Amino acid sequence: MRNISKDNITQAVLDSLSDTPDPRLRRIFGSLVRHLHAFARDVELTEEELYAGIRFLTETGQKCDDKRQEFILLSDVLGLSMLTVSMNNDKPAGCTESTVFGPFYVEGAPRCEQGEDIARGAVGESCEVDVSVKGLDGTPVADAVVDVWQADAEGRYDVQRPGLAHAQGRGQFRTDAQGRLRFRTVLAQAYPIPTDGPVGRFLKAANRHPWRPAHLHFMIQAPGYETLITHLFKDGDAYLDSDAVFGVRQSLVAPWVHRAEGGYALHHDFVLNARPV
Amino acid sequence: MRNISKDNITQAVLDSLSDTPDPRLRRIFGSLVRHLHAFARDVELTEEELYAGIRFLTETGQKCDDKRQEFILLSDVLGLSMLTVSMNNDKPAGCTESTVFGPFYVEGAPRCEQGEDIARGAVGESCEVDVSVKGLDGTPVADAVVDVWQADAEGRYDVQRPGLAHAQGRGQFRTDAQGRLRFRTVLAQAYPIPTDGPVGRFLKAANRHPWRPAHLHFMIQAPGYETLITHLFKDGDAYLDSDAVFGVRQSLVAPWVHRAEGGYALHHDFVLNARPV
Repeated sequence: MRNISKDNITQAVLDSLSDTPDPRLRRIFGSLVRHLHAFARDVELTEEELYAGIRFLTETGQKCDDKRQEFILLSDVLGLSMLTVSMNNDKPAGCTESTVFGPFYVEGAPRCEQGEDIARGAVGESCEVDVSVKGLDGTPVADAVVDVWQADAEGRYDVQRPGLAHAQGRGQFRTDAQGRLRFRTVLAQAYPIPTDGPVGRFLKAANRHPWRPAHLHFMIQAPGYETLITHLFKDGDAYLDSDAVFGVRQSLVAPWVHRAEGGYALHHDFVLNARPV
Repeated sequence: MRNISKDNITQAVLDSLSDTPDPRLRRIFGSLVRHLHAFARDVELTEEELYAGIRFLTETGQKCDDKRQEFILLSDVLGLSMLTVSMNNDKPAGCTESTVFGPFYVEGAPRCEQGEDIARGAVGESCEVDVSVKGLDGTPVADAVVDVWQADAEGRYDVQRPGLAHAQGRGQFRTDAQGRLRFRTVLAQAYPIPTDGPVGRFLKAANRHPWRPAHLHFMIQAPGYETLITHLFKDGDAYLDSDAVFGVRQSLVAPWVHRAEGGYALHHDFVLNARPV
């Protein structure tokens, strides 16, 4: 510790972390330092680049407020969110797969009744959604708490509309005795993730587009089952093969059926994984 | 890209970055993603831990303002700053070694004359500093721009004293025709880095102390030479073997001599590395 050089500093930092009382934190801190230093050595990071990175992270933190979470976006576009989701949601075949949570969920969404319209003025073509929630053995899951949220026809979530006084395109339901849930909304459209912050600058530097394919978010919670956080993606969307946040799984792509009488209909059966007893 | 899983996501993200136009950024982005994903896989990161990390980084960014740079502190306590300094400042034997810049440098410090007192009211025992700046061949470096900054007897920099209207313990000088610089100040003391933010919480979780051994910062710039950013550390300090930011090099430890007539005296010869022509 009295003569730090590039050859001994990684071990010196690891030694300084070896008294971390919590064993899980000790493992995380040690691995973080090993990988962080390995990255800096691999690219032969310059001092100017380190400061550029520090400025980037500082601006990312300062872009966050109660309606904007730029670090979740950064984690999303680097694939870290989806990697974490994938590692933690291995399920038996037949269960609905998980995908990224995203930064637009809001706690305390309006409690809604079966059949209610969650658009509440959001622009877009009308859409009837009719889904079921079951266990892997086919048992209907009654009284499951189902949060839904989505962007409107202009590709915006309600929290991206300054001054909007009430929720649009989001709500919380409960499934009926047969595990069914029906509600009305507007057709979600593909949209670019926000690009007016550091994450937008990163995407531009990488020559990447910011678009996500059209999707509807679901979070389904029920006693005895693992919570399911997922999307349904709109079949045929131009961005299914290049989602900016790497969230697409083929099993989550669903048809929005255009109806002769106008508007769209979406049917889907969700299958929950039982929680280990 | 249409069926992302934990097995293919890292390659999918790397592919998405392969069109980065700038070759240096392409290399950095690719290495960053490989190491970031390797870290998450190594520790089998949970979703809860990912969100805890995102909250930590968000709070780190939001702790920064014009006088506080929490991300530099984080880089410092993880040894990333010193690793980067070490990798970028390999010099011939005999040259003064570099160490961390730290978060307390301020641009536009007061221009001072030879012999001036930079304390300007800072508390502490008086100290006379007498240094020289030379090239490796012994040539005095005249008219070098020398920034100095330091903590006071209470371990605080001026920027850590809210409401202080003028600089204390910092100044910018020029060496004389013989490459010499003399000035007065107060004795720097060991101090804890700021612990009232996320970095303090990290140190506490790792059971690490926040102290740095007493030191005086120097940045020396002269045409034809590499800029030198370094400290002199006070010999005998209790924290020389456990500097919170891993900055100590034995060659930078210098004696502050207690003088019979009171106060301290510090002599040191800095040796600059010639800039490649």
